[in-house]
Amino acid sequence: MQKKVLALLRESGDGYISGEEIAGRLGVSRTAVWKHIRALKAAGYEIESHARRGYSLLDAPDLLLPQEIQPTLRTKVVGKTMFHHEEIPSSNNEAKRLALEGTPDGTVVVAEAQGAGKGRLSRGWYSPAHKGIWFSVVFRPSFLPQDAPKCTLMAAVAVVRAMKDMGFSVGIKWPNDVLDENGKKLVGILTEMSAEMERINFVVIGTGINVNLWPEDYPEELREIATSLAMLRGGKVDRAELFARVLEAMDELYLGIEQNGFGAVLDEWRKYSVTLGQEVNVIGVKETFVGTAVDIDEDGALLIDTSEGRRRVLAGDVSIRPRK
Amino acid sequence: MQKKVLALLRESGDGYISGEEIAGRLGVSRTAVWKHIRALKAAGYEIESHARRGYSLLDAPDLLLPQEIQPTLRTKVVGKTMFHHEEIPSSNNEAKRLALEGTPDGTVVVAEAQGAGKGRLSRGWYSPAHKGIWFSVVFRPSFLPQDAPKCTLMAAVAVVRAMKDMGFSVGIKWPNDVLDENGKKLVGILTEMSAEMERINFVVIGTGINVNLWPEDYPEELREIATSLAMLRGGKVDRAELFARVLEAMDELYLGIEQNGFGAVLDEWRKYSVTLGQEVNVIGVKETFVGTAVDIDEDGALLIDTSEGRRRVLAGDVSIRPRK
Repeated sequence: MQKKVLALLRESGDGYISGEEIAGRLGVSRTAVWKHIRALKAAGYEIESHARRGYSLLDAPDLLLPQEIQPTLRTKVVGKTMFHHEEIPSSNNEAKRLALEGTPDGTVVVAEAQGAGKGRLSRGWYSPAHKGIWFSVVFRPSFLPQDAPKCTLMAAVAVVRAMKDMGFSVGIKWPNDVLDENGKKLVGILTEMSAEMERINFVVIGTGINVNLWPEDYPEELREIATSLAMLRGGKVDRAELFARVLEAMDELYLGIEQNGFGAVLDEWRKYSVTLGQEVNVIGVKETFVGTAVDIDEDGALLIDTSEGRRRVLAGDVSIRPRK
Repeated sequence: MQKKVLALLRESGDGYISGEEIAGRLGVSRTAVWKHIRALKAAGYEIESHARRGYSLLDAPDLLLPQEIQPTLRTKVVGKTMFHHEEIPSSNNEAKRLALEGTPDGTVVVAEAQGAGKGRLSRGWYSPAHKGIWFSVVFRPSFLPQDAPKCTLMAAVAVVRAMKDMGFSVGIKWPNDVLDENGKKLVGILTEMSAEMERINFVVIGTGINVNLWPEDYPEELREIATSLAMLRGGKVDRAELFARVLEAMDELYLGIEQNGFGAVLDEWRKYSVTLGQEVNVIGVKETFVGTAVDIDEDGALLIDTSEGRRRVLAGDVSIRPRK
């Protein structure tokens, strides 16, 4: 009902709508309308109340609320079910919990802040309140578990597509680091999966996007390696707009994969890559070697031409550093 | 304490041990001893009480109790932590729940009966009380997620090794069906995994072994395709002994994999295989073809020579049927 009240306020644009009209159109009492208006104000909506003219929506809070995001969202699967938290320990853990309980394909969990945001390999992910987009999506794909690593490429492609649409100049370092032109990190992606050997139960893709962090928001040790969209633009960036664009890109890519496989994702990844064509150091667990990154193959593995022939490296085995 | 009372009873072999001696050696009252004896009897232990001579253990119940299994178990990891249930819906689901809570590597969950035993691809697994060994093991391996499908081969090898040690003539149909000489099914294996893209959180291997089922124990539709060890032998088989042997084989294979990779498992699999060397029909999702199964490769994929060259098939893509 609160959503419907909000929708009517939005409908009125810069104008006013009377409590009586809202009550009439929604079939509730004027007291009920007044209570919903009060709840919206408490949630951060700026609403002017005028004795004769009624109510007018002046400003919406800078929150990633489903009631803000969903009405504008042009998706078929992603975000049809959405949970918002002011703070949770980890959106991936919450998404996995929901997935085990049967939440539908495309469910989104978004948090204004994460108390213990998770990065890859038990590293943390710094997720301060209202500064970024910290969210996870539950997918229930029909492809095989061995294709799941490519979900990470898909997520990176979705984020970069959305950022480019908003005018940012960003690229992907293999496999899924989204970087600015100076090689500073904007995004972290953590993909987890529950699977039988021949079937995926669910995939959870967690994405953290540094949107409105300023240098002073970062702990010392991150300032050198991390950046944010606000720093790139030199001003605040609309989190809700970017979030909706990322979800739309994920939706389109995911449905494309389910229909036609990962080919289009890999092609778009190649377009955004800052790794291909570069001289790289490959730092593996057992050995280190140098070569030229020439392509990714159908598994998303990076192909590297070395003096001893072509080598193939899989995510997880190695880190890649450009040679300076 | 009950375990300790049982251990003292066992120590006395066919002889007797007095309540006074038990009380003295364990530092408890004679009333406490009496209560533990009563609890053991309630659990199915046959214990003779003699006024002067004391207690004698005549027979242990046919249950897969940790107190029965663990004292004889020569393992380093598998079964060090063990949970026994008279009945649970699914040992795999219980093992996954424990794994999420942090239960250690090698934890075993065994059930006398499963209310909703799970087979592959949402099929059920028939698990009547006291007739089989229905259990799951939680592993926390250090190998990469892409190696996890080979865990299924490992489990099949462990089961076959244990059965052969007990004199049964059995083999493995690729990838993990354990069959008798007539091609009837003795074992079901369901491997599930929780993983990041570059690290396994945990693997749960569920194994169901048809031990003491007779034809009348099976539902009609299973009689043609399933058999049991009791039917092969023509008499009851010691579940506890087989269970301990399977856990020991899993322990040895798992530690070997962690140290040296899957090579030894694949070699032992080849030895037990009834598929290699056979003419087979490969029935895939998109196409069907015929050929000769010649080997498995390092990923555990089956290699098949066809009239159009060598084909490689992965578990999950296909079913294999011998050509008659």
